[in-house]
Amino acid sequence: MSVSLEQARRAIDAKTKPLGALGRLEDAAVRLAVLQQTLTPRVASARVCVFGADHGVADEGVSAYPRAVTGEMMRNFGRGGAAINVIARSADVEVEVIDVGVDADLKDVPGIRHESVRRGSRNFAQEPALSTSELAAAMRVGDGAARRAHAAGVTALGLGEMGIANTTSAAALLAALTGAAADVCVGRGTGVDDAGLARKVAVVTRAIDRHSQSIAASPREALACVGGLEIAAIAGAALAASELGLAVIADGFISTVAVLAALHMARHDSPERAQRLGASLFFAHRSAERGHAFALEQCGTFDGVDASPLVDLGLRLGEGTGAALAMPLLRAAASVMREMATFESAGVSAGDHASEHSA
Amino acid sequence: MSVSLEQARRAIDAKTKPLGALGRLEDAAVRLAVLQQTLTPRVASARVCVFGADHGVADEGVSAYPRAVTGEMMRNFGRGGAAINVIARSADVEVEVIDVGVDADLKDVPGIRHESVRRGSRNFAQEPALSTSELAAAMRVGDGAARRAHAAGVTALGLGEMGIANTTSAAALLAALTGAAADVCVGRGTGVDDAGLARKVAVVTRAIDRHSQSIAASPREALACVGGLEIAAIAGAALAASELGLAVIADGFISTVAVLAALHMARHDSPERAQRLGASLFFAHRSAERGHAFALEQCGTFDGVDASPLVDLGLRLGEGTGAALAMPLLRAAASVMREMATFESAGVSAGDHASEHSA
Repeated sequence: MSVSLEQARRAIDAKTKPLGALGRLEDAAVRLAVLQQTLTPRVASARVCVFGADHGVADEGVSAYPRAVTGEMMRNFGRGGAAINVIARSADVEVEVIDVGVDADLKDVPGIRHESVRRGSRNFAQEPALSTSELAAAMRVGDGAARRAHAAGVTALGLGEMGIANTTSAAALLAALTGAAADVCVGRGTGVDDAGLARKVAVVTRAIDRHSQSIAASPREALACVGGLEIAAIAGAALAASELGLAVIADGFISTVAVLAALHMARHDSPERAQRLGASLFFAHRSAERGHAFALEQCGTFDGVDASPLVDLGLRLGEGTGAALAMPLLRAAASVMREMATFESAGVSAGDHASEHSA
Repeated sequence: MSVSLEQARRAIDAKTKPLGALGRLEDAAVRLAVLQQTLTPRVASARVCVFGADHGVADEGVSAYPRAVTGEMMRNFGRGGAAINVIARSADVEVEVIDVGVDADLKDVPGIRHESVRRGSRNFAQEPALSTSELAAAMRVGDGAARRAHAAGVTALGLGEMGIANTTSAAALLAALTGAAADVCVGRGTGVDDAGLARKVAVVTRAIDRHSQSIAASPREALACVGGLEIAAIAGAALAASELGLAVIADGFISTVAVLAALHMARHDSPERAQRLGASLFFAHRSAERGHAFALEQCGTFDGVDASPLVDLGLRLGEGTGAALAMPLLRAAASVMREMATFESAGVSAGDHASEHSA
């Protein structure tokens, strides 16, 4: 059975409610139906992958927290005590924690997959963060996570991260992909003061200048130069998940920038590839981090992407927490399409506008 | 154990996340802790009550749907096929459907509680919608619903409604309570056209004029004159639920106006009564219905009320659908307070700002 956008819209319009009265939940329901190619879509099993990695650029003093916190938080994830664990449990969402490059020995920690590519990226203020082969390896880690999720029956995959200094990396990548000035892309992250913010802007500005040739060459080279291992893993996961027909739920600033990089890479391959990725994407929330609104807007310039976030609670934590919070909304959207009665089946009188399309 | 706002804030600030990084979810967590007087709050069992009633003012041609739809939709609720049933199921929220005054014989319909006060309110364009004793009876129906929920272990109670023409009643009540002009309060409801909208504005303007003396007398008399049976039931439920320590989740426009009436009535009794109600209130979403933003703003003028809605998806359906969608967010907020590790318990290094309060 093939389900077009038109058919899905007609199906939702036949449900017992005034046209468009469920607002953006209806848009999500329609997109899930088309993505899953069924008028009875499901978000039964949902998962958030949390990719952890360290960043050489932390040496530039761009974070309010010491670098050791990446590893400490990974242990917290492993024990189930962090925000993502707690929120996911409350929303019946699975969590998979993956070490793709943390600078700590986490081998003894249960509840963490060990797929470390290297112990943190290099300091991109001095040199490219990742080699071409390291980038490819990190993207394969994400690819593997998407395949595992699909094999486990997951239909909605949230993409989260942990990595001290990764808002600096994501800001640099956003500037690199879009050509925007550093101060549009850089924010306070976990809470740097004015001096820290000025340092971040300076680091990003210099890095964009230093790596300008690679940045101009391709989105992939830009990602290798200023990105990070967890950012590459998220991009790889998004690309693979979309090919497998999963709904891909971007989380906050870092996750959204990683997805934007994936969109650029997909378009670099072919317009159809980018369109397939665009059709799979859902954006969980609007982060309070400066740069996130711009990153969302940039995602929205791609064909078929609906970049309006589902939740707007002023979150700025990452870890996939926004994605986990958005899952019940996607689940409800799928249920509306799958289970609601129609005017006809319920014997409810239609209104004045029952034959019109609402906006 | 007594839990102050200060203690609850300190508890959330000790959790393993940058200060304030969970945004408004933290505010909700703090409010739930104070409301339940515990640092381990719970939203385990959540319920949405849907109060249904008809409105004499439907005779004025103010709705896009025929009056029969109230009864037809009640049958749909009873069968579990409406949006509220489907969304609540997907979010693990109970639904209780209560006929407080539908103009249809629903006695044969399973899944509906029969507590009809009369078969619809009178047309308030002509005469007061409810007598004093009818108003009291309808409020008692809401009071009983809150007590049943509390007895069943429910800790979060959403308040929804169904009633053709009830956006006209709610708009008139909003105008009556606030003194605002009719065109600030009246919207398109389920989708009336421009002529229908003009009729609604005219009906409300005339009614406010006709009933001005009663409106000036007390919020209770205003509710009797232009309100409806389901609106009165919601007000009664909110007042009782807050005294029982339940979180009360207002839904869309009609539910919010009913809660605003409850706040006015509580303040009329005593400032402490209004404060207790204010501390229990959560607002589910910002409806696309004109007048809802104003109604929220008016609720926010009461002491201790946080009127920022949790969800902003452009819903305009009612039934309690917004309240059901907001429940997983409240559940997550409670879980964050109850289950998250602290920096100390998890051995995570604190950041630069760990001793400061963020906004």
